[in-house]
Amino acid sequence: MSVLIVGSTALDSIKTPKAENPRLLGGSASHAAVAASFFGPVRLVGVVGKDFPQRYIRLYKRHGIDLRGLQVLPGKTFHWSGEYEANMNHRRTLKTELGVFETFSPTLPPAYQASPFVLLANIAPTLQYHVLEQMQRPKFVAADTMDLWLNVALPDLLKLVERLDAFVLNDSEAEQLTGEDNLLAALKKIHRLGPKYVVIKKGSHGSVLSGPKGLFICPAYPLHKVVDPTGAGDSFVGGMMGYLAASKGPVEAHIRRAMVYGSAVASYCCEGFGLQRTTRTTRAQIDGRVRELERLARF
Amino acid sequence: MSVLIVGSTALDSIKTPKAENPRLLGGSASHAAVAASFFGPVRLVGVVGKDFPQRYIRLYKRHGIDLRGLQVLPGKTFHWSGEYEANMNHRRTLKTELGVFETFSPTLPPAYQASPFVLLANIAPTLQYHVLEQMQRPKFVAADTMDLWLNVALPDLLKLVERLDAFVLNDSEAEQLTGEDNLLAALKKIHRLGPKYVVIKKGSHGSVLSGPKGLFICPAYPLHKVVDPTGAGDSFVGGMMGYLAASKGPVEAHIRRAMVYGSAVASYCCEGFGLQRTTRTTRAQIDGRVRELERLARF
Repeated sequence: MSVLIVGSTALDSIKTPKAENPRLLGGSASHAAVAASFFGPVRLVGVVGKDFPQRYIRLYKRHGIDLRGLQVLPGKTFHWSGEYEANMNHRRTLKTELGVFETFSPTLPPAYQASPFVLLANIAPTLQYHVLEQMQRPKFVAADTMDLWLNVALPDLLKLVERLDAFVLNDSEAEQLTGEDNLLAALKKIHRLGPKYVVIKKGSHGSVLSGPKGLFICPAYPLHKVVDPTGAGDSFVGGMMGYLAASKGPVEAHIRRAMVYGSAVASYCCEGFGLQRTTRTTRAQIDGRVRELERLARF
Repeated sequence: MSVLIVGSTALDSIKTPKAENPRLLGGSASHAAVAASFFGPVRLVGVVGKDFPQRYIRLYKRHGIDLRGLQVLPGKTFHWSGEYEANMNHRRTLKTELGVFETFSPTLPPAYQASPFVLLANIAPTLQYHVLEQMQRPKFVAADTMDLWLNVALPDLLKLVERLDAFVLNDSEAEQLTGEDNLLAALKKIHRLGPKYVVIKKGSHGSVLSGPKGLFICPAYPLHKVVDPTGAGDSFVGGMMGYLAASKGPVEAHIRRAMVYGSAVASYCCEGFGLQRTTRTTRAQIDGRVRELERLARF
């Protein structure tokens, strides 16, 4: 089944101690859509400016991503510049130019409205909500977020969270949102906001799922070298939703494995700048890392 | 089979934002020995002063711990005072009084010298080495350490590490020792120092084993409340070595499960001050948490 993905579609200029890469394809929706594309059909909702390079359109198309929901508007594409420190754990935003995102209000193509799986990748919660309002009884809706929205748009975020099946956030955001540094206490409070499933991302420490069948501790794939972690969280949730949409039967039966697949795709994301490594990977390689994760977690 | 454990035997005065507990039974060897005692016979090597409370001797005995290697010397028992911040992740040493440890040089009772499993729990590496020198061809030797010894006794520590089967340390110590913030790079350098097995402790994020059969990602048991994490790392390695010593056949076949058992015992340690919760647990409860960890890690 199809997964509809809305989020940011951006150009990222990323600086690390070893390299500088201007105007890479980036944004939460780009990372999530490419990650999901390894498992089945993906529908993208986003906006770019007239300056958006044609080679990135071709990249989306190579991944079979349906672009009827990608608007091209007069103006500039959303542009983010950031810099990583040597250990890749700290990054600093140098510049954020919203461009065409400043006035963007997505209207779904009619063909998208019945998509069974919806991923509201990281973007302003009002936009996520606006997309959700246009959907016709989706089977499963997940949303990701970032600390920015906790700081500047908390009421909007809470209104959205109420309607989600799954809410995905990282451990520091969970602590910020709930005031609880204990993971179980934080999870309990987040479930009370609405979602049946809560997924906490912990970077290289993996992730944790909380749902009706209890907790699941999902390992991260150990990497020899992290080149650029930008988009790893988006790739994780994109891979997870792509795998779920491609699986038959109830979500409950597949969600743990979907997270492991998300981990595997996210590991490829970290091994190159922007989407450079992810786009070169294959479903067979991803399956290989999932098998390795099985071996790593077995006891 | 028996496990011989050497390390510190101490009185701990522990302050948290909610409570103050003076003169608890503490020390790496106390935590490790009690943790190991759930699985089989334990031989303790340590030293206490004349002020050491008889109730703590009774506690060791209730756990069936062989005390022929525990010296009682004129003077004061090693006393550590520490304070935790609200989130339990930061602790501050208020006072360290070495007492009888200042001049301690352990001489093993003859009956101990052929112990097949040896745990050199955290203590000065020269003392760990001195114990190892008195052993007759042990089957498996593991050692734990702490940042203090990396700072003040690195050459002694390196001399010891060369002779270990397993070296256990936490993630920040691994980075300090190797200069590598990447886990796999750090592991590679630590293996080059000698040990066949390296175990990296990551607190609430679990632990990682590196050995001839590759990596193992071991989950931590998620807790609703951490009362006092003092001794959790010692309990982990004590539980691990106790389980290994009690298992038949090659270490390789049991070491993953041994770590999961160590995680389970360590979780009990965190739920009370000092050893208060650990001493009240049972093998059946520990087995229960191991089964829960199986469910939490399955996909």
